Amino acid sequence: MAEATSMAPVDSRRRRVALVPRLKDQGYAPDQVEKRRRWVEEKTGSRLEHVGATSLPTEEMRGNIENPIGAAQMPLAVAGPLLICGEHAEGTFYVPLATTEGALVRSYERGMVALTRSGGASARVWIDENRVAPVFFLEGVAEAHDFAARIRRHEDDLREAAESTTSHGRLLRVECLPVGREVIVSFCYSTGDAQGMNMIVKASHEACLWIQRHLGGPRYYIFSGYNSEKRASGSLLAGGKGKKVTAGARLPRKIVKSVLHSSPERLVDMWHHTVLGHMQAGALGYNGHYANGLTALFIACGQDVANVANAAVGITNLDLTPDGDLYASVTLPSLTVATVGGGTGLGTSHECLEMLGCAGGGHARKLAEIVAATVLAGELSMGGAIGSGEFVEAHELYGRNRPEAAGRKRAEETP
Amino acid sequence: MAEATSMAPVDSRRRRVALVPRLKDQGYAPDQVEKRRRWVEEKTGSRLEHVGATSLPTEEMRGNIENPIGAAQMPLAVAGPLLICGEHAEGTFYVPLATTEGALVRSYERGMVALTRSGGASARVWIDENRVAPVFFLEGVAEAHDFAARIRRHEDDLREAAESTTSHGRLLRVECLPVGREVIVSFCYSTGDAQGMNMIVKASHEACLWIQRHLGGPRYYIFSGYNSEKRASGSLLAGGKGKKVTAGARLPRKIVKSVLHSSPERLVDMWHHTVLGHMQAGALGYNGHYANGLTALFIACGQDVANVANAAVGITNLDLTPDGDLYASVTLPSLTVATVGGGTGLGTSHECLEMLGCAGGGHARKLAEIVAATVLAGELSMGGAIGSGEFVEAHELYGRNRPEAAGRKRAEETP
Amino acid sequence: MAEATSMAPVDSRRRRVALVPRLKDQGYAPDQVEKRRRWVEEKTGSRLEHVGATSLPTEEMRGNIENPIGAAQMPLAVAGPLLICGEHAEGTFYVPLATTEGALVRSYERGMVALTRSGGASARVWIDENRVAPVFFLEGVAEAHDFAARIRRHEDDLREAAESTTSHGRLLRVECLPVGREVIVSFCYSTGDAQGMNMIVKASHEACLWIQRHLGGPRYYIFSGYNSEKRASGSLLAGGKGKKVTAGARLPRKIVKSVLHSSPERLVDMWHHTVLGHMQAGALGYNGHYANGLTALFIACGQDVANVANAAVGITNLDLTPDGDLYASVTLPSLTVATVGGGTGLGTSHECLEMLGCAGGGHARKLAEIVAATVLAGELSMGGAIGSGEFVEAHELYGRNRPEAAGRKRAEETP
Amino acid sequence: MAEATSMAPVDSRRRRVALVPRLKDQGYAPDQVEKRRRWVEEKTGSRLEHVGATSLPTEEMRGNIENPIGAAQMPLAVAGPLLICGEHAEGTFYVPLATTEGALVRSYERGMVALTRSGGASARVWIDENRVAPVFFLEGVAEAHDFAARIRRHEDDLREAAESTTSHGRLLRVECLPVGREVIVSFCYSTGDAQGMNMIVKASHEACLWIQRHLGGPRYYIFSGYNSEKRASGSLLAGGKGKKVTAGARLPRKIVKSVLHSSPERLVDMWHHTVLGHMQAGALGYNGHYANGLTALFIACGQDVANVANAAVGITNLDLTPDGDLYASVTLPSLTVATVGGGTGLGTSHECLEMLGCAGGGHARKLAEIVAATVLAGELSMGGAIGSGEFVEAHELYGRNRPEAAGRKRAEETP
Repeated sequence: MAEATSMAPVDSRRRRVALVPRLKDQGYAPDQVEKRRRWVEEKTGSRLEHVGATSLPTEEMRGNIENPIGAAQMPLAVAGPLLICGEHAEGTFYVPLATTEGALVRSYERGMVALTRSGGASARVWIDENRVAPVFFLEGVAEAHDFAARIRRHEDDLREAAESTTSHGRLLRVECLPVGREVIVSFCYSTGDAQGMNMIVKASHEACLWIQRHLGGPRYYIFSGYNSEKRASGSLLAGGKGKKVTAGARLPRKIVKSVLHSSPERLVDMWHHTVLGHMQAGALGYNGHYANGLTALFIACGQDVANVANAAVGITNLDLTPDGDLYASVTLPSLTVATVGGGTGLGTSHECLEMLGCAGGGHARKLAEIVAATVLAGELSMGGAIGSGEFVEAHELYGRNRPEAAGRKRAEETP
Repeated sequence: MAEATSMAPVDSRRRRVALVPRLKDQGYAPDQVEKRRRWVEEKTGSRLEHVGATSLPTEEMRGNIENPIGAAQMPLAVAGPLLICGEHAEGTFYVPLATTEGALVRSYERGMVALTRSGGASARVWIDENRVAPVFFLEGVAEAHDFAARIRRHEDDLREAAESTTSHGRLLRVECLPVGREVIVSFCYSTGDAQGMNMIVKASHEACLWIQRHLGGPRYYIFSGYNSEKRASGSLLAGGKGKKVTAGARLPRKIVKSVLHSSPERLVDMWHHTVLGHMQAGALGYNGHYANGLTALFIACGQDVANVANAAVGITNLDLTPDGDLYASVTLPSLTVATVGGGTGLGTSHECLEMLGCAGGGHARKLAEIVAATVLAGELSMGGAIGSGEFVEAHELYGRNRPEAAGRKRAEETP
Repeated sequence: MAEATSMAPVDSRRRRVALVPRLKDQGYAPDQVEKRRRWVEEKTGSRLEHVGATSLPTEEMRGNIENPIGAAQMPLAVAGPLLICGEHAEGTFYVPLATTEGALVRSYERGMVALTRSGGASARVWIDENRVAPVFFLEGVAEAHDFAARIRRHEDDLREAAESTTSHGRLLRVECLPVGREVIVSFCYSTGDAQGMNMIVKASHEACLWIQRHLGGPRYYIFSGYNSEKRASGSLLAGGKGKKVTAGARLPRKIVKSVLHSSPERLVDMWHHTVLGHMQAGALGYNGHYANGLTALFIACGQDVANVANAAVGITNLDLTPDGDLYASVTLPSLTVATVGGGTGLGTSHECLEMLGCAGGGHARKLAEIVAATVLAGELSMGGAIGSGEFVEAHELYGRNRPEAAGRKRAEETP
Repeated sequence: MAEATSMAPVDSRRRRVALVPRLKDQGYAPDQVEKRRRWVEEKTGSRLEHVGATSLPTEEMRGNIENPIGAAQMPLAVAGPLLICGEHAEGTFYVPLATTEGALVRSYERGMVALTRSGGASARVWIDENRVAPVFFLEGVAEAHDFAARIRRHEDDLREAAESTTSHGRLLRVECLPVGREVIVSFCYSTGDAQGMNMIVKASHEACLWIQRHLGGPRYYIFSGYNSEKRASGSLLAGGKGKKVTAGARLPRKIVKSVLHSSPERLVDMWHHTVLGHMQAGALGYNGHYANGLTALFIACGQDVANVANAAVGITNLDLTPDGDLYASVTLPSLTVATVGGGTGLGTSHECLEMLGCAGGGHARKLAEIVAATVLAGELSMGGAIGSGEFVEAHELYGRNRPEAAGRKRAEETP
């Protein structure tokens, strides 16, 4: 029961309700986490047994969360084999996916089998950046114009200032977008294997201080909204917020038939007509369900899951080869993945990254290629299900508790 | 090491790589899950101790995932108190948040304290629907026009057909959108406390069969892409994919000052200028970081996390009252939450829903109001941080392991 | 030379520069228009002979323009024959197009010939509405919710109030969109053969006054920005701002070959890949160059040309029939055309409408179907030019002064 | 009567309808234009007196139109004075506007007076480019990646090839956007005072031929759809299709009051709330009615009017200065204007350009600044009308034939 304490007197402006207890050193010691959990149980009338049954050392949560009370657990599965021919990811992978949506893992697995039997998915990273875009306020349109022109001329100074704060981040370039009398200054960085937002916010902050000292001191906000962190926007399609990755594969007609239960023509037809539906909806880009694969992988691998909001904007393409085979591709212009920092080092996350050979430094682009190939598998499988009319049936089978039926299904599907 | 088996001979079209083992009854028994996990460890050279250390009964995962190997664990915290004056949610809540982004919980907590001290957040559900939108193919533009007109006349028949498949779903209306010679038919349902996609896909499938039998049998796909499930699109802003919820609060100037370290004018100024940045980016709607709060809550409460892609499209507004206080609101037109079905009944998810008094039937709108109020808290806190220039500092404090500093900080923040 | 009069003393806040002369009865008499023109010539050092050489009676300009000095002239051509099989437009049309872009008329003519030889274009009007969307300001989210609910219940009263101001407009329905503590109220009207904005703004104004008197008097603005008049927006795709019209035709392979110099497959391929380009650009909908045909027709026929901004948002589709012919269609969800009011009665506009059998009342939907079929012709021709690689050549021929070459060209093109 | 000739036998596939007569040398001689016009009159049962009454020499229409029958006439007015402090436009201007929308000229005039009395509008050109974006087709994702990388390395070769076709155009840079296995190659040019599409299409064509010869000969289309010519898209906001221009002014409170009948606070409030309406509509950018001013100016000055579709995407901003004055700005990222080529040299167009001191080479940026300042005037005036509630009244006055009322009105308006 949540409606606990003090609803009675509705003067309310000065209500006294209990703050979450403040504990010594922020309370990451096991007994403190437990104490806080007990307090929550008491306050809310709930029992938090599973929440408390975590194997994660609570002290390691420091830096990743405040007020910890335990851990959320989400079912984790494996899908594969997924053969990838990337620049960074090469070989056969078994991909960890955390989800509670029945049929999702089976569907991705089907796509992976189709890709693998077709000789694997190619994958490439075209852009690898991250950006922060402060906005500066000038007196008028003319002053903003001049300010932007001066920023351009001082790119080297800004680089020096920004890079003084970090050993990993590198300022690639600075772009100015005057809007009326304001100037959005977009700082574009390379962040290595980290997602790097904290790093580059700090670096940009330093660059802004340089601007204030040397270019007349205009007022600014460190975020203009232009950077589209964790939001969907059209500008994401051009890349620059994370990695722009493509993955693609040629699927012979007979594999499309045997594994996806469809034909190349049928899948291209499905693409064509669902593209019209996306247009009609005013969607950004086009995709079947990037968000499903991204979310399942991000949760498994300790990525910042909220980045799905930007990462799920992309473009799937299906077309025919001259020989009548299918060529399928995905383009993810804003894939924000990391193999160091954030939640990547914690218990199950670290283990899942290890499953992919991606734990630790030097593996972010490899992970990006694996993610893109996984997303491609999901697009193929869902496309096949829509194209063949099997979608309803598949969700009936896996979304419920009918082992016999599902068992039969799988046998046919992946012979 | 992932690059396991057989990269050598690149004839590849017929590569033989190991499928994930198929186990009896799909392999949900504990020993079978363990067997599969061992197989993965062997194949990938990883150790999956934490993955295996789950308290979730593996048999209960059936229907939620295939090929299970254990569970992902993500740190879980509590934020609050959050006072809500909704139609369905009334009282003081302590909100479970699962995340690995340092400072996030502290930030949401700060916004919650600001709301609570201001008398709480109002919240209302305006639309509560879900939709599936098949597309039908006609011979020409004239035939499509006539088909759409006939669909309109047969709405009652379609309702009967659709509702014959479900005891919970209710077909509210049918909308036709001709596009050239195709007709997108958008079926809009009420789905009770479930997210309900499987339910309404099945119902729409039945309605499509009725159309095929009675209206000339045109070819169709069950998904046109128009429904924007798990994708960002402009049409989401009009609602219909999930619950349209608003939450808002009036914050006295002195609370804006003491808790958010800003002023109403400063926050409105921040809003104004970051709106320009969103425009410049071609963003859908406007918000600071809905995705953060939504993701943390969705993971904690067993929601379908991939729905963040649609749920994170919304509109935050900050403006002044005649008395110089701040009025802050969030509008989430596509909030897809459920308290039954999907992952809502599993271990930690169920417990987290219980923390909110939202476990089981009859609570979906209550949960929607809590989510909206939580998101509002996050917008206020982030707005405050940007407006006051404290953003960089806050992430320095909480994104790292510096207990002393963070301890000091918090003391000032929530006196 | 524009920098005429008084640049000298730059105190500027109180500069005295000459206002355009105010003449008796607003100055629509021929001699007054001339007097004003002379004044402009003097002030700006220009000679306005052609501007003065208009055949339009200046008195008739009243209501259409203020400060008249003559008329702009734009070359006018005819394109056709265009065979249309609409509900309202039936038969063969010769279409007036005003433009200064070389090759445009020839290109549209080519498309028209292709359509006509293929048996004509079908065309249908699916929605015929216009809308005004005021926004009301409430005290909070809860009050906004209640207000919106009350508006819904009073739709009949609002209809009565709105329709009291007009004999032509009819209020079809009222839609409420709460955004935080505001409520956008979208009034949707039928406006007969007029574009009708003035009519429905006045009607909505009256309805707003009713709301103020009976529903608690909240502050409002008559325009919320939601109506997308003369602006491009995603919501236009759903229709409601003007007429939603589709036009389509099946083109036999040999006509695609002989007239468009392409093949059905080639055109579908062109569609497929330029759709990807549109996505990459974050475009609304998809089309080749609706704006060209719309602008040329709107200028010729006295339409409000600025409406091109909304009317040019639409969706072109090209796909194959089972027999290997081409099916081409256009969908214009926001076509704002009129045959009465505005500039429709003036000199050349009236004559051009007469060319189409569309002058005066009762013809707006007919005009809409003609416009859609014309736009379809343009899409086909441009598609053909891109698909065949002839685009560069065609613009070389017609965009310059080379009569011989162009003569040769045309002979081949339309045998 | 349009339904002329031969509707009778509906076998239709081989209908014989009359083509527009082909005349010697394409028929630009006065008697041939007349002959064609007579033919149209006969075919359509219309009389085209006004159409024939043009003062434009028909021979001069060659290169601008095919099948000419005369000219369309549109009422032309003058609005001013408009004081501009640009880099290229300096001084007081009287602006020609062609329209049939009553109240439009008066409204723009009012905004111009407000700007002029406030000391004038600043204006600046930040970007001055135009672009063509072919798309190339590669065999797979890996090949596309490599192709894009090679294009980057050969920018100098591409420049040489492109510039070999033109003495005015200059290739500024080449951008590659891989999408799956395709690569959009965006060629960005400076085009001097011409709009320049024909010029840069030809240049890009040459560059594509170079690519085919030297980089493996992939198939391509000269237009990918990415360039957003005459279409609305989010990518326009970043500039590159035409000139990016800003105009702005500080308006003292008392001028806002006396001329715009509003207050700075009221206008900012109007901005704030109509921005929400734009968001709710999924609009690109934000503006009141750029399309009105752009269209009226483009028709008057012989611009390519269809470019309004891209030019009308922009961002208006209104905010307060520390002293409580209003700062208003417009940002037009895709303003496509020219002072040479196209229709700029024809009769009334040339005269209107002369009114602005913009006829001929060397004036395109000046014209861009004038257009931006004019658009700014329109935003202010419409904002004032919405903010003050006078919008309905104003359109009542000027949209009809009531000279007395309108006369009174104007006297108050511009004292």
